[in-house]
Amino acid sequence: MTTAAEVLARCAELDRYSAHPTHLERVYLSPQHAAANAAVADWMEKAGLRTWQDAAGNQLGRREGREPGLPALLIGSHLDTVPDAGSYDGMLGVVMAVAVAERLGDRISDLPFAVEVVGFSDEEGTRFGTALMGSRAAAGTWDEDWWELRDKSGTTLYSAFREFGLDPRRVGEAARRPGELVGYLEAHIEQGPYLEAADASLGHVTTIAGARRFKLSVVGEARHAGGTPYPRRRDALVGAAEAITAIERLARASDCIATVGRIEVMPGAVNVIPGRADFSLDLRAESDQDRDAMWEAMSAEIERACAARRLEVRVVETHRAPSMRCAPWLTDAVVQGIRATGDANPMGLWSRAGHDGMAIGVVTDIAMLFVRCFDGISHHPAEAVREVDVAAGLDALEHAVLAVAKGMA
Amino acid sequence: MTTAAEVLARCAELDRYSAHPTHLERVYLSPQHAAANAAVADWMEKAGLRTWQDAAGNQLGRREGREPGLPALLIGSHLDTVPDAGSYDGMLGVVMAVAVAERLGDRISDLPFAVEVVGFSDEEGTRFGTALMGSRAAAGTWDEDWWELRDKSGTTLYSAFREFGLDPRRVGEAARRPGELVGYLEAHIEQGPYLEAADASLGHVTTIAGARRFKLSVVGEARHAGGTPYPRRRDALVGAAEAITAIERLARASDCIATVGRIEVMPGAVNVIPGRADFSLDLRAESDQDRDAMWEAMSAEIERACAARRLEVRVVETHRAPSMRCAPWLTDAVVQGIRATGDANPMGLWSRAGHDGMAIGVVTDIAMLFVRCFDGISHHPAEAVREVDVAAGLDALEHAVLAVAKGMA
Repeated sequence: MTTAAEVLARCAELDRYSAHPTHLERVYLSPQHAAANAAVADWMEKAGLRTWQDAAGNQLGRREGREPGLPALLIGSHLDTVPDAGSYDGMLGVVMAVAVAERLGDRISDLPFAVEVVGFSDEEGTRFGTALMGSRAAAGTWDEDWWELRDKSGTTLYSAFREFGLDPRRVGEAARRPGELVGYLEAHIEQGPYLEAADASLGHVTTIAGARRFKLSVVGEARHAGGTPYPRRRDALVGAAEAITAIERLARASDCIATVGRIEVMPGAVNVIPGRADFSLDLRAESDQDRDAMWEAMSAEIERACAARRLEVRVVETHRAPSMRCAPWLTDAVVQGIRATGDANPMGLWSRAGHDGMAIGVVTDIAMLFVRCFDGISHHPAEAVREVDVAAGLDALEHAVLAVAKGMA
Repeated sequence: MTTAAEVLARCAELDRYSAHPTHLERVYLSPQHAAANAAVADWMEKAGLRTWQDAAGNQLGRREGREPGLPALLIGSHLDTVPDAGSYDGMLGVVMAVAVAERLGDRISDLPFAVEVVGFSDEEGTRFGTALMGSRAAAGTWDEDWWELRDKSGTTLYSAFREFGLDPRRVGEAARRPGELVGYLEAHIEQGPYLEAADASLGHVTTIAGARRFKLSVVGEARHAGGTPYPRRRDALVGAAEAITAIERLARASDCIATVGRIEVMPGAVNVIPGRADFSLDLRAESDQDRDAMWEAMSAEIERACAARRLEVRVVETHRAPSMRCAPWLTDAVVQGIRATGDANPMGLWSRAGHDGMAIGVVTDIAMLFVRCFDGISHHPAEAVREVDVAAGLDALEHAVLAVAKGMA
């Protein structure tokens, strides 16, 4: 039986499938994606699941319930990472789901549903800038406009699908119908400091924050760094720098969180005034209303600052996800699971981070189990979880599955 | 005889030797560098010069004066470019020098010096971040620490030398001794708006601005964009953005010019707080004293802003060139040349841009002829010069060479 220690060892084993020898980066439709899927499929088979990769590169495994073809309780998370990632964001939830399926073993044959484990293929959006592609394929909300998205090297999503061995015309086959699913359960590291501050191993999620992402371009004029007097300069990077400081100032004064994680300037020479600066904006809030009001305030401020410098601002929205409420009935099963580990008053918290549940929640009810992580660190190699917390998480998740079955009885 | 129109056509012809099909970029020790040298060597031979490439990849051509082995009057500019460059910055001065050597023709055999034309190989510093490498090799001020500099793809200068077919151990052979040279004359587009504003075709340079370049790194902590509350954030990009706005504010209030042309953040994902931001700073002033005082003020302000955010600042100086005064006797020959074109009161101006004269000026006297350019635009594909101004420039340069000879008689 897969122990908590083995779960952690499997997470570490997945670190091997990285685009870089010294740090972890595993993006959608890369050779590392294929290798991680193969490793997870192997563990799934050992856990008694029948495995397949779906038409969008998600890795799945299934074991039938008390009769074949019943709707499935889907349990899992994602296998892709940010650049220079930690070992647990996503992977922990997939590996835990496999371990729980193995623990349940033959008991699954008595359940009023099938158990499916999923490793979603693109939650972070690292490669193409658009997040949740894997779970949106599974939710049937794939966007045909995505095919023309390009990665840093200029490869389109369409080409990347073909290079990975997938047929873009068949992506619709990954879509699940509501009747096929009982619900979606995900375990995930908290990625925040709240459980640790409360001295709790586990928590349940109330709502997943609504997020919007934008690509902003500030356009000025590339000119010689020495020969152009200040009154004639239209320096795109100085405009972008003012925008970035304004974004932080406005978000800090609100309950929203805003991050500029990427910036690129053209032409990018030490002795040329930047003619263009492109940067990303990731905006999150507990409610969609708060988030949208914040964006209105930010975009007005950016426009004003850039207009004063005779700079043009172009905005493209690359991602928009409404906040997603976890289903009370399914969350109740998670709460029962946490209680079974000895925590009489499980902590509920809202997720500042996005998760696959935001996408799959369109076709089925969702609930999430948060596992405490070290110092709230995530999206960083120092990401860490304790073995005791993972052991509690496995117990809680196993109990939650049985609680769902009991609720349906 | 090469006309002004042909000079412009040759500049356009050199556009072919670019690393990109749609825009011009030709960097040190690239295949395009070799191709441009070959084209220029061909024109030099047609102009009656004996040609060679020196040990640092500079292209040279020489015709002996009234006896073989006399010191040479060196005339030229550079053949490398910034990314997304115009066709004239550097190239115009090389092509004009070849044309002037051709015009002088057999008259060179009567001169009390040899005429040498040079196309320096690295003035911009685009590839390795350090400028004036070609002319510093010729000046004998090559820095052995440069060998370990790396380009974007990680190639060291040492390896690039070997790949280009040069022997790093022999770079010292490119160095010229003061006794070998009479002086250095360079024609260059102004790269500023002052001649145009004065309705003048040509001008002479009084001083080349002193420049310093730095690479600044702001180091914070990469963390999850959603899960990290503001009080725990150490966002390197927000710190860099504050530094960039402070740099502009301080420079605007002075007579200095400061440009941040490059920025890069790590890890560079939309949903990760930047843990590190590296950016360049190019600082210029008419005097070294003004420039250094400005840097002191800027670095204090950057330190203060970053310390308030618990960010570390690291600074590496990548380039430092003292301001270089043009030699009055050689400048007088340039002024006589401009007068010969009908401009009774040639305009003198200081160069905000750096030039190879800053490096070669260590071993020989220098003077520069500025040619008016359109709207002061440079380091940009829209760089443009008028044929009439080039025609005047050719006349002025030819007269200047003869004036030098007359002064030595």
